[in-house]
Amino acid sequence: MNRMFHVPLSPFCRKVRLVMAEKRIELELIEERYWEQDPDFMRRNPAGKVPVLRMDGRVMSESQAICEYLEETVPNPPLLPANAAERFEVRRLVFWFDDKFHAEVTSKLLYERVNKKLMGRGYPDSKNVKAGAQSIKYHLDYLGWLLDQRRWLAGDVMTLADFAAAAHLSCLDYISDVDWNRNATVKDWYAKIKSRPAFRGLLADQVPGFPPPPHYADLDF
Amino acid sequence: MNRMFHVPLSPFCRKVRLVMAEKRIELELIEERYWEQDPDFMRRNPAGKVPVLRMDGRVMSESQAICEYLEETVPNPPLLPANAAERFEVRRLVFWFDDKFHAEVTSKLLYERVNKKLMGRGYPDSKNVKAGAQSIKYHLDYLGWLLDQRRWLAGDVMTLADFAAAAHLSCLDYISDVDWNRNATVKDWYAKIKSRPAFRGLLADQVPGFPPPPHYADLDF
Repeated sequence: MNRMFHVPLSPFCRKVRLVMAEKRIELELIEERYWEQDPDFMRRNPAGKVPVLRMDGRVMSESQAICEYLEETVPNPPLLPANAAERFEVRRLVFWFDDKFHAEVTSKLLYERVNKKLMGRGYPDSKNVKAGAQSIKYHLDYLGWLLDQRRWLAGDVMTLADFAAAAHLSCLDYISDVDWNRNATVKDWYAKIKSRPAFRGLLADQVPGFPPPPHYADLDF
Repeated sequence: MNRMFHVPLSPFCRKVRLVMAEKRIELELIEERYWEQDPDFMRRNPAGKVPVLRMDGRVMSESQAICEYLEETVPNPPLLPANAAERFEVRRLVFWFDDKFHAEVTSKLLYERVNKKLMGRGYPDSKNVKAGAQSIKYHLDYLGWLLDQRRWLAGDVMTLADFAAAAHLSCLDYISDVDWNRNATVKDWYAKIKSRPAFRGLLADQVPGFPPPPHYADLDF
């Protein structure tokens, strides 16, 4: 059985969970408090991060390397288009979310409000929270701008770019940090992806001490 | 003519330059002081970062998305193996350097010592410099451990993983922050990659105010 060490509100773990569920690859999830740097866990992944996936006799880390591997070994349904230019656009957006959005929004809101407390590292820094709350507006506008020209984020079909974006946004939605009224097109896109069967596992997540708001799991939010 | 907006001591730009030179793709380089956020530049790349590559009628950003595109459109010589598990290992190591090494070493040494001054953002933070100088030791040990089992970082052939690692290390070598005496195997590996024709452009780089040490461009360092 494939097994993944994860935390529920990690956008990188969620991206891999979405890809695996969409490709109907069975997966057992094990929560790993990676910040405690358990020696067994560190042996599995010297980078000391989640996700760590045990699959095909291998122990794999780095979410994007894992997603590319899954795409190559379980090609159906495809989450990367066939054409090189379109594949470029998918990967560009994945990095946009995993790098830029992560630095400007996820780390400033989710990590301040949730991870710090879980890790016993004190209280949210209000300067960071304020900066994150400001930045997410521009990112939602950018998503809206992309979606005014395309059905899905990277083009006319759903791809890994949509899953990367939804992985981050779903974590922030869990702590009510996404203003879905800002842009109707972005809300429609999220409603579409949220209603996919692959999303169910994410919507059932519960983090002790941080109950999700009622709209989080509601498909008609 | 393909054109790339870059800065000489960016490991992400250097990775793309190495890949393009190795694949013998002609490239004109234009220095871009991206931190000044020139409106023309921001229009080309809303992420506000380098590298930005103009090629095949497209304007592309995100170094790893660019490298994958180059690999798909100019497959020779290949910088990713054919097998999915080996490709996974290459990508894992690329992310190791572009994410973990970048955060723990490059940003703490190069960005503190060079970028801050170039950008007019004050003096190096000695706490960061000290942390970076400590971290690079562990990373060199990790490289040595990999190279004890393999000819190149990800396996028996040279790949994108070697270029990603060499891109970071060459920037740090420019400011004499790599102790090549720490591990003879790592030094041999770097000597091999440094002597490739693709490396020549990097070795000729000059940053005003920061002359490189004599050993930087010396193949017999």
